[in-house]
Amino acid sequence: MKKAVIIGLGLIGGSFALELKKRLQYTVVGIDKNPEHVQEALDLGIISQAVDYTALSDADVVLVAVPVDRTAEVVHKVLDHVGENTLVMDAGSVKAPICAELAEHPRRSQFVAAHPMAGTEHSGPQAALYDLFDGKVMALCEVEKSNWKLLDRALDISKALNMRVKMMSPTDHDLHTAYVSHLSHVSSFMLGKTVLEIEKDEAQIFDLASTGFASTVRLAKSHPQMWTPIFLENKVNVLKALTEYIKNLENFKHLLETDQADSITQDIKEANYIRKILK
Amino acid sequence: MKKAVIIGLGLIGGSFALELKKRLQYTVVGIDKNPEHVQEALDLGIISQAVDYTALSDADVVLVAVPVDRTAEVVHKVLDHVGENTLVMDAGSVKAPICAELAEHPRRSQFVAAHPMAGTEHSGPQAALYDLFDGKVMALCEVEKSNWKLLDRALDISKALNMRVKMMSPTDHDLHTAYVSHLSHVSSFMLGKTVLEIEKDEAQIFDLASTGFASTVRLAKSHPQMWTPIFLENKVNVLKALTEYIKNLENFKHLLETDQADSITQDIKEANYIRKILK
Repeated sequence: MKKAVIIGLGLIGGSFALELKKRLQYTVVGIDKNPEHVQEALDLGIISQAVDYTALSDADVVLVAVPVDRTAEVVHKVLDHVGENTLVMDAGSVKAPICAELAEHPRRSQFVAAHPMAGTEHSGPQAALYDLFDGKVMALCEVEKSNWKLLDRALDISKALNMRVKMMSPTDHDLHTAYVSHLSHVSSFMLGKTVLEIEKDEAQIFDLASTGFASTVRLAKSHPQMWTPIFLENKVNVLKALTEYIKNLENFKHLLETDQADSITQDIKEANYIRKILK
Repeated sequence: MKKAVIIGLGLIGGSFALELKKRLQYTVVGIDKNPEHVQEALDLGIISQAVDYTALSDADVVLVAVPVDRTAEVVHKVLDHVGENTLVMDAGSVKAPICAELAEHPRRSQFVAAHPMAGTEHSGPQAALYDLFDGKVMALCEVEKSNWKLLDRALDISKALNMRVKMMSPTDHDLHTAYVSHLSHVSSFMLGKTVLEIEKDEAQIFDLASTGFASTVRLAKSHPQMWTPIFLENKVNVLKALTEYIKNLENFKHLLETDQADSITQDIKEANYIRKILK
């Protein structure tokens, strides 16, 4: 029976565990530094056993799904403990720092730098879901540095989860992710903060949920334990995206101040192009 | 048989027509300056007949659901044509200018200034939906200026649509709506524009839909014909909200530039409070 060890039993690690069991009949065991999460993962049947690093030596797959600022350190330790036939994957949302920190590890070839691009605004083992990854993108970086047999195992797993694999450089990954994912989170966190500042005492009076607000602010429910490290690890790209976003907002503000209806309409029409990309 | 005339057969007018027929057995007829929308509304069974302003004299209800910069002008004309027992409602997203422009109309008491706070990012008769208003807020402004019998009819309709009526001053309405609805739209339009500027040529490569981006950018699909007038009519409040939003984004940018992890986490935690308000 194939054996997987999941390190970090949150939304991503937990959902990955559920799929490895269901779709690929893995025996799945787990590690989490939070004992409550370990117990919840056992209770929910996400893992069959809590283990420690001695369990890694005969694992077929180890997935490291911890906050992104701890990922490289944990993968490093994992590589020190695995056997020769173990595939090690991570799930970090920022790839360049992780790849750089692991570049010189003697077992670098057993590591596949991965980012399953899926998630919800919830966290912890209870947030784990079946089909979370279905139809989503699995970004794989620096695949040329991975052993081809182990990379093939990572591809098989991705396909079994019905994911669409995209291979890209860590640099490209981090730039694009800053725009399509990280900037959305900054935008949503600050929207939530801004609206709460004025609506704090009026939540009973005014119904926030009836408006478009509910969808734009959904991501503002996301957990700082995950997101603070992502912003810091991808600082340069997030700052670039954020600067352009603020510039566009300032420009819109100027158009509104000066009653430039046609230019506002033009801006909206440019944004409307998103209809062609997202249904 | 009770008769309703809907002026403006888009998402809101069309959905209102469907509900008046289904829940209150009204005969619903319609007016739209766009002949294609009239034909679509007939084809879709949203209205039973296309009419003109001569049809208003014996109507029980007239709903004006046109873009907000044209609302006061149309309501004015409607009031000039209705009989003594006709309730006239609007559906404008900005209330102070409309209320001000109609203040002196000799039939002001037949008008109920309304904002059914519901919608989607789609528009036109084909966007009309059953249950769009179910459980949503119906904001009514300056109700003291409306004839109590006609106001009662507006309340009965709102209840039949399962809406929660909130009465408020036009000033309060416009301020709060700027924060919970209009700011979300600015945020989303500019997010769409910013991401498209960098992702323009790479839409095939990178999968925008796999990320939180899809929900934050949903409102960016909304139509400029509706939104440019809303921003301009509610300019003062939108600028206030937008200025605070930009200030919060600039502050976040500064925290990130200076690696202030604890303050970033604090900002995220403040935004997380939204979990307690929106499920």
